[in-house]
Amino acid sequence: MILHLAAFRWKDDVTEADVSALTAALSEMAEGIPEIKSYTAGANLHLRPAGSDYGVVAILDDAAGLDAYLDHPDHVAVYEKHLGRMIAERSAVQLPIESGSLA
Amino acid sequence: MILHLAAFRWKDDVTEADVSALTAALSEMAEGIPEIKSYTAGANLHLRPAGSDYGVVAILDDAAGLDAYLDHPDHVAVYEKHLGRMIAERSAVQLPIESGSLA
Repeated sequence: MILHLAAFRWKDDVTEADVSALTAALSEMAEGIPEIKSYTAGANLHLRPAGSDYGVVAILDDAAGLDAYLDHPDHVAVYEKHLGRMIAERSAVQLPIESGSLA
Repeated sequence: MILHLAAFRWKDDVTEADVSALTAALSEMAEGIPEIKSYTAGANLHLRPAGSDYGVVAILDDAAGLDAYLDHPDHVAVYEKHLGRMIAERSAVQLPIESGSLA
């Protein structure tokens, strides 16, 4: 399986309402894309200094599942309505994981 | 529970051998820190364009567990021996997750 993670730093004018609307839109999107096996998105809890503003963790069966998610019209729509205008900086990584390896 | 994710971009002089040595050191470290409930670290599979070079995902019970991990002498030692001299850029986020919510 594939774990896809992304960390975002927001532009200075992004509000808490923008972030809440994004999280709601991503959650709804994830429920409608069967290739997404697990989805977590939210504002950084900032438990340690110097972190980013927002994170996403998606688990997919394989690379085709990742493409199905990221290229899905509902994901593109969330990007166009919310994410695209909020991002100052984005970091993303895909890691191989074994099924059941995460708590 | 807390999911801690980190994405790294390496300096230009970082080699594959550096990355392999880091992954081995992090894996050994994680096995010795009981507060770490799950640990995945590795080079980005680069399944999509414009990603970072390396990622880490750790799952902890709570904020105290995160501190126990990141401030652990074995983690500090990995940072001093490997990670510190490799990092050009680091992004990190902590997200709340429910136990069993990840595949």
